[in-house]
Amino acid sequence: MTQTVVLATRNQHKVEELRRILSAVDLDVELVGIDAFPDLPEVAETGSSFAANALLKARDVAQRTSLTAIADDSGLSVDALNGMPGIFSARWAGRHGDDQANLELLLAQMVDVPDGRRSAAFHCAAAVVTAGGDERVVEGVLEGQIIREPRGRNGFGYDPIFTPHGYALTTAELRPEEKDAISHRGQAFRALVPVVAELITDR
Amino acid sequence: MTQTVVLATRNQHKVEELRRILSAVDLDVELVGIDAFPDLPEVAETGSSFAANALLKARDVAQRTSLTAIADDSGLSVDALNGMPGIFSARWAGRHGDDQANLELLLAQMVDVPDGRRSAAFHCAAAVVTAGGDERVVEGVLEGQIIREPRGRNGFGYDPIFTPHGYALTTAELRPEEKDAISHRGQAFRALVPVVAELITDR
Repeated sequence: MTQTVVLATRNQHKVEELRRILSAVDLDVELVGIDAFPDLPEVAETGSSFAANALLKARDVAQRTSLTAIADDSGLSVDALNGMPGIFSARWAGRHGDDQANLELLLAQMVDVPDGRRSAAFHCAAAVVTAGGDERVVEGVLEGQIIREPRGRNGFGYDPIFTPHGYALTTAELRPEEKDAISHRGQAFRALVPVVAELITDR
Repeated sequence: MTQTVVLATRNQHKVEELRRILSAVDLDVELVGIDAFPDLPEVAETGSSFAANALLKARDVAQRTSLTAIADDSGLSVDALNGMPGIFSARWAGRHGDDQANLELLLAQMVDVPDGRRSAAFHCAAAVVTAGGDERVVEGVLEGQIIREPRGRNGFGYDPIFTPHGYALTTAELRPEEKDAISHRGQAFRALVPVVAELITDR
């Protein structure tokens, strides 16, 4: 029987990215975005790690909808900033989700950081919580460098200023399917597929 | 013989704070600010620690002026931000020295960080470098908490949002002499006095 699984995000970029990844897999689920539940309140992301925040969101949506819920929390960890923006990536410039302001702020903060010390990594924690309360978290990491000027129009967030190790292009210059193949979120969600399959089968 | 010592900062708040501290000590030096040398170029703060940046600045000014130079690098390390803003404190909002923008950004980034996880510390590294190339660095730390709304008109930087441990007032609500007595910069500069005295006597 087809099961409905809720993607606990209002970020349409993420919904599309996750749907592309999950649609490539033979899993008898219907994915719906959180927009299908307009009355759900925002969950405060009070966790101190990507995994904690992903679990907070998935747990809340699973309880409120009585459906299996998937949530991710992801961000960019810059070594010269001791791992920040990290869990604060989406609101780095103070207002949630202003990608342009966030990446411009990061470049301005790092203006004196020399090329040899600009290493960074995208991290993604993906959590799945069933209506019955089973919980799992998996993680994905994409390592690379922060460049000095934005390049590329694909992707979102910090993609225009990040080049993965071994790539001259930014993740905003890669085609979506190229990015999915290596991205932190792609890795985390591919790792989540067998976990979701197992949890759904167990029911 | 009175020796001239250069304070390597263009921040007038710091010059006043350091002069108050050093003037209380019996040391036969004439302190001059960096404004006495209008042609000195800015030193890029490319170090990865407060101590490294303080040394970079003091070394550069000592070499260019052939005088003993003192420099400090200081900032606020917030535990929930893995020690950031840290060495980026003065340009946290992207433009150097915009205190109001910096503290508003920090409050916005921390809006979901609960009261029990808002610990922070002001750090100061103070370096002295003689014209002959002798170098010393000392450090001072003031631990406390980040509050949620700015309070107080004294001080500068992040003072209006920081309460030292054991204090209900922010460092911007303390009188300047109260702040000097406990501050990171006060500690570092008091520790520097005997070091400067020794280096000057050795000449």
